Amino acid sequence: MRILILGGDGYLGWATSMYFSRRGHEVHAVDNYLRRRAHAEAGTDSLTPILESLPARAQAWREVTGLEIGLTEGDLTDWGVLDRVFREFQPEAIVHYGEMPSAPYSMIDREHAVFTQSNNVLGTLNVLYAMAELAPEAHLVKLGTMGEYGTPNIDIEEGFITIEHDGRRDTLPYPKMPGSFYHLTKAHDSHNIHFACRVWGLRSTDLNQGVVYGIETEETKLDPRLVTRFDYDEVFGTALNRFCLQAVIGHPLTAYGKGGQTRGYLNILDTLQCVELACLNAPEAGEYRVFNQFTEQFSILELARKVQEAGRDVGIEVVWHHYDNPRVELEEHYYNAKHTKLLDLGLQPHLLSETLIESMFSAIERYKDRVIEDHINPKTRWRGVREHTAP
Amino acid sequence: MRILILGGDGYLGWATSMYFSRRGHEVHAVDNYLRRRAHAEAGTDSLTPILESLPARAQAWREVTGLEIGLTEGDLTDWGVLDRVFREFQPEAIVHYGEMPSAPYSMIDREHAVFTQSNNVLGTLNVLYAMAELAPEAHLVKLGTMGEYGTPNIDIEEGFITIEHDGRRDTLPYPKMPGSFYHLTKAHDSHNIHFACRVWGLRSTDLNQGVVYGIETEETKLDPRLVTRFDYDEVFGTALNRFCLQAVIGHPLTAYGKGGQTRGYLNILDTLQCVELACLNAPEAGEYRVFNQFTEQFSILELARKVQEAGRDVGIEVVWHHYDNPRVELEEHYYNAKHTKLLDLGLQPHLLSETLIESMFSAIERYKDRVIEDHINPKTRWRGVREHTAP
Repeated sequence: MRILILGGDGYLGWATSMYFSRRGHEVHAVDNYLRRRAHAEAGTDSLTPILESLPARAQAWREVTGLEIGLTEGDLTDWGVLDRVFREFQPEAIVHYGEMPSAPYSMIDREHAVFTQSNNVLGTLNVLYAMAELAPEAHLVKLGTMGEYGTPNIDIEEGFITIEHDGRRDTLPYPKMPGSFYHLTKAHDSHNIHFACRVWGLRSTDLNQGVVYGIETEETKLDPRLVTRFDYDEVFGTALNRFCLQAVIGHPLTAYGKGGQTRGYLNILDTLQCVELACLNAPEAGEYRVFNQFTEQFSILELARKVQEAGRDVGIEVVWHHYDNPRVELEEHYYNAKHTKLLDLGLQPHLLSETLIESMFSAIERYKDRVIEDHINPKTRWRGVREHTAP
Repeated sequence: MRILILGGDGYLGWATSMYFSRRGHEVHAVDNYLRRRAHAEAGTDSLTPILESLPARAQAWREVTGLEIGLTEGDLTDWGVLDRVFREFQPEAIVHYGEMPSAPYSMIDREHAVFTQSNNVLGTLNVLYAMAELAPEAHLVKLGTMGEYGTPNIDIEEGFITIEHDGRRDTLPYPKMPGSFYHLTKAHDSHNIHFACRVWGLRSTDLNQGVVYGIETEETKLDPRLVTRFDYDEVFGTALNRFCLQAVIGHPLTAYGKGGQTRGYLNILDTLQCVELACLNAPEAGEYRVFNQFTEQFSILELARKVQEAGRDVGIEVVWHHYDNPRVELEEHYYNAKHTKLLDLGLQPHLLSETLIESMFSAIERYKDRVIEDHINPKTRWRGVREHTAP
């Protein structure tokens, strides 16, 4: 299958590009290096030493496996880039990771909020037009987030909910309560994509993904040059990855607030499986479907305790202290999100275990001298605007 | 009250500016003349001969009433404009009409879709930051649209719906199924505004407005120079206003498809009342509320028949013929939208009558020689992209 990977230089995008390439698909990766630039500006970096560019990574991939990954260095908000890539590559599936992926980044200030919404929403709108004009039969596999739903007091369904109301019934998009300007872009995208499927007959799978953890895949382990990026800073790092790194370097775990915030989590190996299952089982023309892409739910405190226990087994003392929550979110709430559709397609979950956490410790240990400690503690506050201007 | 009117040069914006000014409020109007430029580019125009600029309109207002309307000619996507206006005017209420308001315009092609989403979503995001930083106690009265809901098979509530699901219950944002890239921007705005109220404690009323009709208000009737604009072209004109004009000039009514498309409608006089009621009854800090702003529901066929009957009374023969529907929408569907919250605040509706239609006929008759007939029939097709590229 000809698979276009948008955001192919990222944590998941690079891992996915290698995964599909190794399984015999024709892969073309597009990236504008937004994440690399954001790190450079902030003085942060990936824990793992990734090669300097996509061409360098593709060359290493060729040397190690003999396989080709096609490349375009370009921006999805630039129509010329999409026009050229779609005409030349004629994708059958488009795996779309190509967005600014950080909630804190979007909450830094007005400029970052406007950039985030502009970049994500308009880039994806361009992708929809590229599909309608140049690849109307292709399948858009779009990475969304479980964060689109927020934390409602009822079970979270997969994208749609059947509502009985005053004696009538309809199945409608699940209500959205995103928790940052970044998460809001994913809800905006979902509405735009759903519309494009209804009106133009496009087909799309919206993967509402949980928080991904893990540092290695089968492909990254083939050669040190094939590592994927691993972020642990307050802006781009995510909960469990950050906790594991903090444990290794003896930093207190940054558990925010009361720690009852519960979310869905999954192993990076399962991201690869899920995206593959979506690609191999395309929806009908005109169909917009949503899968909740995670394997287990944990609260922040549960995660912190797991990391502490794994640390005990290998002789690392893990501590945490109270961090005021920089976000605005419920810290104690009901949370039960359905996630059966990918299991029905054959997903075999890699559940979180102490062994897995310990193997993350060892992988992190190898790159420990690269850690920049300055940017681990939370700085970006959701209420920053109001605090800044309060008298 | 100091009331900022964003989009103060428009059909409703200019009428609202005069309305509040005459009632003793301090009014400041902002506009970037987007609508005037779009008309100039398309070769269309307002039926009514509006003065050449906001300063000319404000000067006429001063001459007729002795009252001042403050002005800024500028764009909401330009932060410098908002920063200056908010610092200098210190608004207590912000009535926000300042968006690209046309569904067909947003569906012309990719450029128009991207422009619409960029202009509306990013402009409103700037307004939210201007409030948070410079007027945190002010009240945002945002014009949304009933079109955010689409045509669900259950009753449409006012913004939120209480859902009972598997033995639990929550009140959540009403699911959104907008029908154009323009309507989608209003849903995106609603999600962004709701978030800003939750996180920053802003207060906002989202007025999900139906289709407005009417050509005159108490203020426009004071002097011919005070007319508000009246659009009847396929891009900016709306159903009943278009039908009345078509009847007067002997053009077949442009009823699309089967004509069962049912929507909420209201008189422009009621828009003024509703916006005033919202301003005078501000929500609490942190509260985001939604009012469905319309007074009656009609199908397209019902409207066409009313226009035909009114025509018969005054000796105009009104005909219509079948127009293929350029939009993608259900043409036969359930529709029952609640609209009690503004009535509870005291709204006294001006319901649609033959007399009203006949008075619209007379008003239109005065400007009949200004009609540009070329742009009345529908040209912009929702499926245009696919049709254009089909083999």
